[in-house]
Amino acid sequence: MFDYVPTGIPGVDAILGGVGIPQGHTILISGGPGSGKTTFAIQFLHQGATERGEPGVYITLDEEPEDVKKNMSQFGWDLDRLEKDKKLIFINVSPIRVASTERAGLIQLGMKEFKLVKLLEAVRAGVEEIQAKRVVIDPVTIFMLQYPDEIERIYAMRDLIADFRKNGCTNLLISELRGTGLEREHQFEEYLVQGVILLRTVMKGDKLSRMFQVTKMRGLAVDNQPRPYDITNSGIEVYPTLTVFK
Amino acid sequence: MFDYVPTGIPGVDAILGGVGIPQGHTILISGGPGSGKTTFAIQFLHQGATERGEPGVYITLDEEPEDVKKNMSQFGWDLDRLEKDKKLIFINVSPIRVASTERAGLIQLGMKEFKLVKLLEAVRAGVEEIQAKRVVIDPVTIFMLQYPDEIERIYAMRDLIADFRKNGCTNLLISELRGTGLEREHQFEEYLVQGVILLRTVMKGDKLSRMFQVTKMRGLAVDNQPRPYDITNSGIEVYPTLTVFK
Amino acid sequence: MFDYVPTGIPGVDAILGGVGIPQGHTILISGGPGSGKTTFAIQFLHQGATERGEPGVYITLDEEPEDVKKNMSQFGWDLDRLEKDKKLIFINVSPIRVASTERAGLIQLGMKEFKLVKLLEAVRAGVEEIQAKRVVIDPVTIFMLQYPDEIERIYAMRDLIADFRKNGCTNLLISELRGTGLEREHQFEEYLVQGVILLRTVMKGDKLSRMFQVTKMRGLAVDNQPRPYDITNSGIEVYPTLTVFK
Amino acid sequence: MFDYVPTGIPGVDAILGGVGIPQGHTILISGGPGSGKTTFAIQFLHQGATERGEPGVYITLDEEPEDVKKNMSQFGWDLDRLEKDKKLIFINVSPIRVASTERAGLIQLGMKEFKLVKLLEAVRAGVEEIQAKRVVIDPVTIFMLQYPDEIERIYAMRDLIADFRKNGCTNLLISELRGTGLEREHQFEEYLVQGVILLRTVMKGDKLSRMFQVTKMRGLAVDNQPRPYDITNSGIEVYPTLTVFK
Amino acid sequence: MFDYVPTGIPGVDAILGGVGIPQGHTILISGGPGSGKTTFAIQFLHQGATERGEPGVYITLDEEPEDVKKNMSQFGWDLDRLEKDKKLIFINVSPIRVASTERAGLIQLGMKEFKLVKLLEAVRAGVEEIQAKRVVIDPVTIFMLQYPDEIERIYAMRDLIADFRKNGCTNLLISELRGTGLEREHQFEEYLVQGVILLRTVMKGDKLSRMFQVTKMRGLAVDNQPRPYDITNSGIEVYPTLTVFK
Amino acid sequence: MFDYVPTGIPGVDAILGGVGIPQGHTILISGGPGSGKTTFAIQFLHQGATERGEPGVYITLDEEPEDVKKNMSQFGWDLDRLEKDKKLIFINVSPIRVASTERAGLIQLGMKEFKLVKLLEAVRAGVEEIQAKRVVIDPVTIFMLQYPDEIERIYAMRDLIADFRKNGCTNLLISELRGTGLEREHQFEEYLVQGVILLRTVMKGDKLSRMFQVTKMRGLAVDNQPRPYDITNSGIEVYPTLTVFK
Repeated sequence: MFDYVPTGIPGVDAILGGVGIPQGHTILISGGPGSGKTTFAIQFLHQGATERGEPGVYITLDEEPEDVKKNMSQFGWDLDRLEKDKKLIFINVSPIRVASTERAGLIQLGMKEFKLVKLLEAVRAGVEEIQAKRVVIDPVTIFMLQYPDEIERIYAMRDLIADFRKNGCTNLLISELRGTGLEREHQFEEYLVQGVILLRTVMKGDKLSRMFQVTKMRGLAVDNQPRPYDITNSGIEVYPTLTVFK
Repeated sequence: MFDYVPTGIPGVDAILGGVGIPQGHTILISGGPGSGKTTFAIQFLHQGATERGEPGVYITLDEEPEDVKKNMSQFGWDLDRLEKDKKLIFINVSPIRVASTERAGLIQLGMKEFKLVKLLEAVRAGVEEIQAKRVVIDPVTIFMLQYPDEIERIYAMRDLIADFRKNGCTNLLISELRGTGLEREHQFEEYLVQGVILLRTVMKGDKLSRMFQVTKMRGLAVDNQPRPYDITNSGIEVYPTLTVFK
Repeated sequence: MFDYVPTGIPGVDAILGGVGIPQGHTILISGGPGSGKTTFAIQFLHQGATERGEPGVYITLDEEPEDVKKNMSQFGWDLDRLEKDKKLIFINVSPIRVASTERAGLIQLGMKEFKLVKLLEAVRAGVEEIQAKRVVIDPVTIFMLQYPDEIERIYAMRDLIADFRKNGCTNLLISELRGTGLEREHQFEEYLVQGVILLRTVMKGDKLSRMFQVTKMRGLAVDNQPRPYDITNSGIEVYPTLTVFK
Repeated sequence: MFDYVPTGIPGVDAILGGVGIPQGHTILISGGPGSGKTTFAIQFLHQGATERGEPGVYITLDEEPEDVKKNMSQFGWDLDRLEKDKKLIFINVSPIRVASTERAGLIQLGMKEFKLVKLLEAVRAGVEEIQAKRVVIDPVTIFMLQYPDEIERIYAMRDLIADFRKNGCTNLLISELRGTGLEREHQFEEYLVQGVILLRTVMKGDKLSRMFQVTKMRGLAVDNQPRPYDITNSGIEVYPTLTVFK
Repeated sequence: MFDYVPTGIPGVDAILGGVGIPQGHTILISGGPGSGKTTFAIQFLHQGATERGEPGVYITLDEEPEDVKKNMSQFGWDLDRLEKDKKLIFINVSPIRVASTERAGLIQLGMKEFKLVKLLEAVRAGVEEIQAKRVVIDPVTIFMLQYPDEIERIYAMRDLIADFRKNGCTNLLISELRGTGLEREHQFEEYLVQGVILLRTVMKGDKLSRMFQVTKMRGLAVDNQPRPYDITNSGIEVYPTLTVFK
Repeated sequence: MFDYVPTGIPGVDAILGGVGIPQGHTILISGGPGSGKTTFAIQFLHQGATERGEPGVYITLDEEPEDVKKNMSQFGWDLDRLEKDKKLIFINVSPIRVASTERAGLIQLGMKEFKLVKLLEAVRAGVEEIQAKRVVIDPVTIFMLQYPDEIERIYAMRDLIADFRKNGCTNLLISELRGTGLEREHQFEEYLVQGVILLRTVMKGDKLSRMFQVTKMRGLAVDNQPRPYDITNSGIEVYPTLTVFK
């Protein structure tokens, strides 16, 4: 009943049943700072644009597109070219801009002018412009912060996911992971999406270890075991046949 | 004094005293994301409908029925057919629909229009329509979120269970489990239902381990030990004679 | 100075100094869901009624008396008969009833109409009717929830215990235990009663272990060590000479 | 510069520098339910009254004097006689009495009528009546609960201790200890008193172990090591030369 | 660029780079009840007054000066004489006095009349009177409690330290340490002072162990390792060449 | 696409891909009290000023510049000279000054007069005056405290970083780390900056161990492993080839 969308990221599709993400799913990519979340997302879009003729939209709520491209240059991906060829589109929907020094520091209670509506419109516009099949929101956490009340946040997330269900794309929501331990509390977004991938950096004794783990994927039998991964000079690489060392 | 309702899920009835769930009970099925809660619930309904002539009602508060059926297709269950033959009925009582982009992001304080009343009516209507004997609410957590006050939540849950006592069915309430550790705080719903089944994914060192455990079953002596389980291509399978490995 | 009230539950009286509970005490029976608290309580009343000519009152704030009797049927106790012979009396003082679907879900702020007064009257009436010598309140937690303020709760519990001091009976208050670990915070009720018995289910590695422990008993030297117990087909059985296995 | 007040409790004075509590100190005796706090306190008064001609005042805020005496009867202390001979005096300053069933359950916001003043007057009256040299407040926790605000509580405790400094007696404040683990947060009262004694029941694996420990004693070098203790049929007995077993 | 102020406490100056505290620093001495904080502080002043011709001011916010001197008598320090010779001065700036029984227990919201101003004036007066070079505030915690709001507390502490920077003395602030474990959260005062010394009593298995540790000392390379210490009959003694035993 | 800014601190640039910090980045330097954060920052500026002709601005929100220079004198850096030669500039933007004793202790609710604007102006002025290429804010925590609301704090931090993106310098924000354990919660600032360096002092058994770790560095492949470091008499020294001992 499903089509599958291979990520093209080494080792990942083997973990995803050998086929990839079920088409149309919204997946949470959750990790700590420096875990490679943005790299994973850009690599997903880059692979789609170059290998599979699937254009992609990258929505940034935090870093400027120029800085993202600069940070990704270490992997050898020519993102500017893909943008020119309308294979990728970078959209900045950062809620606040510092226009002048006066505005700096003012409490931006009016940030709720930045509605879910604006975000959804930006996504829609981007998808339409290049007929995208892949979408990334990075990070969705900034969007969630607009809603201080937990119940509002849950409903906003549900609205976002409901709207994404109709956009015909496979969507990644990049999210920030709170704790560093192996035992943790589940964040509410994990219950609302169709899949969850964790990129964790865990201290084993005094050694840092990177663990890639698919903890949820509706509609597909996947390998749920944590697997080691690296950030190489070509991007993320996961090792599906290895166990994370103790 | 009891009739028993076999789940038909491999390994589960052996754990349930060899007979199944005492008829009429309301059971909490609690687990983390990706633990197989929905799979367990659908399998329970599917088994009832196909093996025991017991029609079932699946009430969803989160995923669209179409998506649920699509996600379950990997197990080879022909849910559309059972629905046509009025052996299963899928009802969506999701509190919020995004009707248009304007409504997206508005704070839905009016969600209390979604009353317990509507949920109970939906259940009643479904049970009546196909003379159901099995009911699933998935997940009951979304319903609980309507009541921000803890005491209101407890009383709402008690009302729900009290009403279910009269519906002549055996009911599963699917619930989200907060933490991932072996030691945990009991959630208040566990005290109000007649039985509790936990589907846990626990990290043993770096290996993920799935544990099925019946922690409560009024009126029946059960095996309380945690047992390993898998999500196979036929659904959930529990291994009642094995111990979870360290 | 004391008379003693043997529980008649296998293994328990050996732990209670070989004699039982000091007459007139109010004892907290605290445990998690599925730990056998209600079974312990009913067994205490059943033993009193059948073996020692001591009628008993069972006050339920949660489950319907019919369901309690049904759930206990697995142990072979003829509770209906004892009720007919006025050896036992089951009283339901559940604070809320769902009279019609309209009332379902309404916030019952008026629950404070359910006063301590009503509970005490129900107890008094029951004791008087059958000249009871044993009383069970199951669970006292629901009663406590009527008082959101912690200090009010403490004073309400003290009033309850003060009133019980005068009822000439030996009283068990069934209570819900929060955490599952061996280390825990003491709940305030433990300081107010004359005795505390814990029924705990503890995970030892991956194996579930049941532990019975008397942590407090004023006026009597008891064995404070945790001892294993089972829920057999005759009810609770404690093993006073065994140590809980690691 | 100090006189010392031997407790007379076996093993304790050896730990207190071989001499006892510095005269005039206010000491916190902190422990969980069933740890023997009240037994320790009564034994201290009993020893003073019978062995050292030091009358004592026992102020109870929780249990009725009659019940305390009944509970202590297991140790063979003739408390009634000592009361008749004006060697001991039992005073009840319980903040609430249930006068009639109407008053039960009413929120007693007016409990602040029970002032520190009343408690201090009760102590003063008792000390004067029998020329007491030893005083026990059991438990001081109930008194503290009158002050919901933490800062008020700190100042009330300081006022109490300041007043006690002038009463010419050696004073024990019995207090409830929150957690059961070996690692814990210090309670604020520990900083305000001149000495602190902990009576802990700790789980060692599955075995319960009793530990007596003097964690603070101004003006006297003491043995701070935790030592095992028992509650025997003569009262508390501490073993100053033993180590608590692992 | 610095002069150094040897503490004169055995073992401490060896840990402080062999020289002592950089002159003019404000140091936090943090420890649990019974850890020897006050002893350390008095020993520091005593050493300064007797060995180095540096008079000292002891500001108490909790214990009466007479009681402090009495408690310290066990170490053989003639504090009364030093006071007469104007080598030491004891000042009581306790925020509350119980003037009469009426005032006892009244909520002292007016405690903010006790301003930082009064404390600073007391210090200034004391320093001027005896030309002090060493100052102790014991404990600074009571002063901090005047400010319920965390941000006010931080600013009050900064004002205090800023004022102390100009008093030409080397200052110890005695503070209460919350938890007993080895892992802990840093208290905000640790970031505002120029040095931090912890006096910890840690449970090693069942044995109590005392650990002295300098965790911060601006301007001087110190030994940061925890070292064992004792409270002997001459005061504190630290063992800089030993490791704390496991 | 990047230029790199070597820190010049022994061992650090080897960890930073052999090249240093990507030019223009804002990096968080996070550590506990006494971990060497300020030393690291001053060493970074000193190296830039003396070895690479890159003037630097040191903005202090806490310690007076004179005290910082005095504390750093132990390392042999002639900061006064560098200041005279306009290679370094020290700017104090401490939010509160104690002008007179009256003002001490007054609640400074007006501290929000200290705007982000003032901080940014101070930075801009300093950078312009000496044509700086390196900037340090020490600590940024004091600035964050101006915003009690978490969302305001996040937006203020984003504004600060956005402004820094345009200042043409490489910027270090010094921050206070809450806990001492190896497992921790990520602080929100870690998500907003381009790099994160942790200076941790961890207890290994009873031995204190210093660990340097780069947990994030956008645009550059770095060594993420924790490495031991010391504070020597020349400043910080990291050992990139060693593992932290257990």
